[in-house]
Amino acid sequence: MIKKYVFGQPLETGAAVLEIPASTDTCSLMRLTQSEEGVSLFYRMEKEDVLYGLGEQVRGINKRGFSYISDATDDPIHTEGKHSLYGGHNFLIISRRHKPSFGIFIDNPGKTVFDAGESKLDELRIQTGCDCVIYTVEGESLKEIAKQFRELIGQSYIAPKWAFGYQQSRWGYESADDVREAVSGHHGHGIPLDAVYLDIDYMERYKDFTVDKEKFPDFPEFVSEMKERGVHLVPIIDAGVKIEEGYPVYEEGVRENYFCKDENGNDFVAAVWPGKSLLPDMLNSKAREWFGSKYKWLMDQGIDGFWNDMNEPAIFYSEVHLKKVMDEVISMKDENMGLHEFFHLKGLVEGLSNNPEDYRRFYHNMDGVKIRHDKVHNLYGCYMTKAAGEAFDKIAPDKRTLLFSRSSYIGMHRYGGIWTGDNASWWNHLLLSIQQMPSLNLCGILYAGSDIGGFGCDATQDLLMRWLEFGIFTPLMRNHAAAGTRPQEVYQFENIPDFRNIIRIRYGLLPYIYSEYMKAVFDHEMYFRPLAFDYPFDAHAPYVEDQLLAGESIMIAPVYRQNASGRYVYLPEEMMMVRMKSLEEKHCEVLKAGHHYVDIALNETVFFVKKNHMLPLAVLDDDIRNISGIDKNRYEWVGFAEDKAEYVLYDDDGMSKNYTPKEQWTKVTRSVNELDVTV
Amino acid sequence: MIKKYVFGQPLETGAAVLEIPASTDTCSLMRLTQSEEGVSLFYRMEKEDVLYGLGEQVRGINKRGFSYISDATDDPIHTEGKHSLYGGHNFLIISRRHKPSFGIFIDNPGKTVFDAGESKLDELRIQTGCDCVIYTVEGESLKEIAKQFRELIGQSYIAPKWAFGYQQSRWGYESADDVREAVSGHHGHGIPLDAVYLDIDYMERYKDFTVDKEKFPDFPEFVSEMKERGVHLVPIIDAGVKIEEGYPVYEEGVRENYFCKDENGNDFVAAVWPGKSLLPDMLNSKAREWFGSKYKWLMDQGIDGFWNDMNEPAIFYSEVHLKKVMDEVISMKDENMGLHEFFHLKGLVEGLSNNPEDYRRFYHNMDGVKIRHDKVHNLYGCYMTKAAGEAFDKIAPDKRTLLFSRSSYIGMHRYGGIWTGDNASWWNHLLLSIQQMPSLNLCGILYAGSDIGGFGCDATQDLLMRWLEFGIFTPLMRNHAAAGTRPQEVYQFENIPDFRNIIRIRYGLLPYIYSEYMKAVFDHEMYFRPLAFDYPFDAHAPYVEDQLLAGESIMIAPVYRQNASGRYVYLPEEMMMVRMKSLEEKHCEVLKAGHHYVDIALNETVFFVKKNHMLPLAVLDDDIRNISGIDKNRYEWVGFAEDKAEYVLYDDDGMSKNYTPKEQWTKVTRSVNELDVTV
Repeated sequence: MIKKYVFGQPLETGAAVLEIPASTDTCSLMRLTQSEEGVSLFYRMEKEDVLYGLGEQVRGINKRGFSYISDATDDPIHTEGKHSLYGGHNFLIISRRHKPSFGIFIDNPGKTVFDAGESKLDELRIQTGCDCVIYTVEGESLKEIAKQFRELIGQSYIAPKWAFGYQQSRWGYESADDVREAVSGHHGHGIPLDAVYLDIDYMERYKDFTVDKEKFPDFPEFVSEMKERGVHLVPIIDAGVKIEEGYPVYEEGVRENYFCKDENGNDFVAAVWPGKSLLPDMLNSKAREWFGSKYKWLMDQGIDGFWNDMNEPAIFYSEVHLKKVMDEVISMKDENMGLHEFFHLKGLVEGLSNNPEDYRRFYHNMDGVKIRHDKVHNLYGCYMTKAAGEAFDKIAPDKRTLLFSRSSYIGMHRYGGIWTGDNASWWNHLLLSIQQMPSLNLCGILYAGSDIGGFGCDATQDLLMRWLEFGIFTPLMRNHAAAGTRPQEVYQFENIPDFRNIIRIRYGLLPYIYSEYMKAVFDHEMYFRPLAFDYPFDAHAPYVEDQLLAGESIMIAPVYRQNASGRYVYLPEEMMMVRMKSLEEKHCEVLKAGHHYVDIALNETVFFVKKNHMLPLAVLDDDIRNISGIDKNRYEWVGFAEDKAEYVLYDDDGMSKNYTPKEQWTKVTRSVNELDVTV
Repeated sequence: MIKKYVFGQPLETGAAVLEIPASTDTCSLMRLTQSEEGVSLFYRMEKEDVLYGLGEQVRGINKRGFSYISDATDDPIHTEGKHSLYGGHNFLIISRRHKPSFGIFIDNPGKTVFDAGESKLDELRIQTGCDCVIYTVEGESLKEIAKQFRELIGQSYIAPKWAFGYQQSRWGYESADDVREAVSGHHGHGIPLDAVYLDIDYMERYKDFTVDKEKFPDFPEFVSEMKERGVHLVPIIDAGVKIEEGYPVYEEGVRENYFCKDENGNDFVAAVWPGKSLLPDMLNSKAREWFGSKYKWLMDQGIDGFWNDMNEPAIFYSEVHLKKVMDEVISMKDENMGLHEFFHLKGLVEGLSNNPEDYRRFYHNMDGVKIRHDKVHNLYGCYMTKAAGEAFDKIAPDKRTLLFSRSSYIGMHRYGGIWTGDNASWWNHLLLSIQQMPSLNLCGILYAGSDIGGFGCDATQDLLMRWLEFGIFTPLMRNHAAAGTRPQEVYQFENIPDFRNIIRIRYGLLPYIYSEYMKAVFDHEMYFRPLAFDYPFDAHAPYVEDQLLAGESIMIAPVYRQNASGRYVYLPEEMMMVRMKSLEEKHCEVLKAGHHYVDIALNETVFFVKKNHMLPLAVLDDDIRNISGIDKNRYEWVGFAEDKAEYVLYDDDGMSKNYTPKEQWTKVTRSVNELDVTV
């Protein structure tokens, strides 16, 4: 049961798609109070309550014991002390042991603070703005609450099937030849690859919807060369539009007043990668339509996937703020600079980027209504992605286009996925990415993944290998690294056959991953789930922070510690452990319910099949290059059955929007003896 | 067996105390090569080799898989991507499964890089300067190698017994009244307390060896007031001396040429907390003697403990570098600042502090020899502490004085301990501090601890509680937090009786902790040991990264994850688990060898007693206020014996240097029936 509470004059964010009449009851689940500062929610937690949700944030699956702030921020240092990452995902489930659990969604695109037991261990306090809509979701189980919420916010985005293949990225592929080298590097070692990403360097002076002609002399020709090699190119689109005379996107936008304005109605100047730039007014429907239409230029050249970046929006500095700071710095010159002045200087310069004052310095024209940016800050990236998604429906209405974003807000999950931003080559970030996945799924974001191997810092061979062994289960499986870091393509390391084996296991699992992803979309389910969602009566499940259910048949327990010989695994019920050195070299073993230490060598992939469940595993040719090499008639069935196991297999052409209707989903039944891979 | 290899013209650092003739052999353990860039060491690791050591660094007990750089750095963000912390501890044991293990010590106070398998998983590469002494240590076991190395570097520092009590600190105690409040806060809740720390605010304008008269109107009187309440005051001493006319320390130092000089022989000006300051030339024996003598002024007022800080040395900015940067910044004013200039500006300002160029801008007069600072960088904090330690031997020859430091180098362990610097209120830093302890012990640093609860960021109640449950086993047990963070004294949280219970358990364990500490000092043993040191034939022990042996009788397995219900524990042999809610409420249970999941509530302290081992546990009065309340005649014996258990108890007066000679150490034997606390 969903109830809706309306406060003040909330903006229509588009997060919810179901029309629900506003409730006039007093909310009985949490204490809701209104004041001049905004709306506050209070809930006293029992010791055993667990908090699930909040999408992309730091820390564990259980969000208790910290304060999270929905305030989209381009901050690449994702330590456990950070209160905000790139998104605003205000959905939280309070899981209670002795009473029914419930969910709460704060639909407000301004700043919202969740003190989830940081100040006092047993107090959950939420503070949001004056104008907001609050939904409570009651249901019989965690799964049921999650499903209701997902119905409220509408069906998640569907990526083309090739976007479930292995993908390679690097900020540093500067030319067609760099990309060719990356493709050859994989193919030369027999490693399948479905996409290569173009980071900001492909553009002409970082101008959106341009391609540098020197680096990519004949871009459409290059796109088809890559397609012939089985590789999709996925260019980045940044939020900021370069100020440059003669650049049509800039000139059109200025002429039509499509950019965000300062208080006086002048275009607001912010510096990002292209230098001084203007921010398209993504909250204005005409500007959005215009910006979205620009993607066509690249699609006409054969591009069928994009990633939207810098859309918190990140601001390196604003023209007005920089001037203020520089004036102040220069006035310090003649002082005998003391410590106070020194720290002030450091603070001024460090505070130039993503400065909160800047977010109060520009305005949107939301179809006639002038709104200061900070009030709708968390919607910017969401609406940029909506702009693209809505445009794709017009430009290529019958085809799926890959789309994901850095910044997001609930509602954006209908238009695209996300990647978890600029993480680092830290073992802790491998664990973090495991923990983020179910929280994102709860908020509707199913197409998601982290930068495998880590974006910042140098990856080591063992980190990349362990990260891939988790990454083979994430819908978005992309290796990405920052400029200046150690080359991170798998073929840059030793033991390349081990890497090849891991990535081939992904392709073997792809029919299952794709099937589970699609069913989760259509049924409003979570692809990744914390253990307590499937085992609500298990006393230990709520404390398991490093294992996930992935789809309906399997549980994963990735190794995320350096130099580990394996890890502890908790089994809420008897399961079959599948240990793979390669797609061809598998070993199955039944483990009892309870705690286990499982040895897992660096080059081993391990997962657990639930009882009376099974999954398809594609048998691959030795020379498979991308998803097109997966043969639907050559599946092995991996299963753990007492008598028989069943599986509902979803499949389709992977490209069109002719999705297979539910009544045509394939129900496969195998008796114990018919299982290809079992104990 | 220790071998010594001499390269170039090494400086006498004082790290080693045994005289060993230089070997003329070719080293058979590692490949040593000399070139113009310096000395390189290479070793190809087997898959099962484990690397122990390197003292204060990030990451795990096993140092494989990352590059560590000995280059003392004041960097408070101790993420796993950081290559240097505050010290230079160049001792490493290569633990081998199929061949004898060995240790390697690089005695060079300049930069040394340990690529411990970062570039290639199986390659250990060490790069150091041209002038160095390298020692190899061969022995029959890890313990034996560790012991030989410790004999080489000499007996570790002995703290007074009160420094094993609970200690409270905060950067933010600004006045006598602030300190009184902290003491009352503890005593008012029946929480014992042995010391309160004075951070930089006690000084007059941050001048070393001054006390602000307004904040502390009668300091000697205040010191004795605190002593009467059972509390020692421990003031901070910073490395930099403020430039201020009329300030005797500054004027004397200038007159006698006791400060570091620039290339032209002028005093080198660096800004630290007091503003523009000069750096005492700690490598000059006269300057050292002079600086050490200054501590007397505080000791004459009753002070008997110090912590040396900012001695990497940290430099906020140097006068010369700031001028250069400001000139450059100002020259940018009239440019239409582009992105390149903007990042350059940010880099300039961010690079002002602890700039490597600055470390090449000043010189030491090492008793007649002019040495550029960067060549001896890692010795600075060590020699500052040596200055104090040697002075104490003259000022208070019969008494122990508490002394520890932020920066250190092997050799400093003979003069004082360390704390692990400016960590944060992160769960990962609780784990890090567990992992740092045995590495520090290997390098001789026994008196050590982390800032309990974390220095930066806000601690939550659960983090502080779990951290204390580990901290009760560390010789230095100090709660410390930075200015601007949430108040972190235990009485600032809820459930104060739980905190009281934990701290009282420390006092109950104190006879054991002190005894084990002192025996480790005299016998050149490690107080904290990785499991593989005690269980060399156990196949799983080398992979246990979150459990430690603490003294000879017990193993600890702290909980370091938020919202955990307990943790996995590995037992290399059958042990007795002791679970304590308080000193009075104990429960014992025998656990078999192997893997276990152990439930550990937030307010429970758990440790494991080894078979046929025991330990004393003091029975405390309800109103015990500090260590003086521990009654030597009221020990319970906690033990796990088949037939009988033995324990060698060390004790002494805790203050003088009249240490109990080995033949008078008390050997206690208890039969099963005589044990007070057992199964």
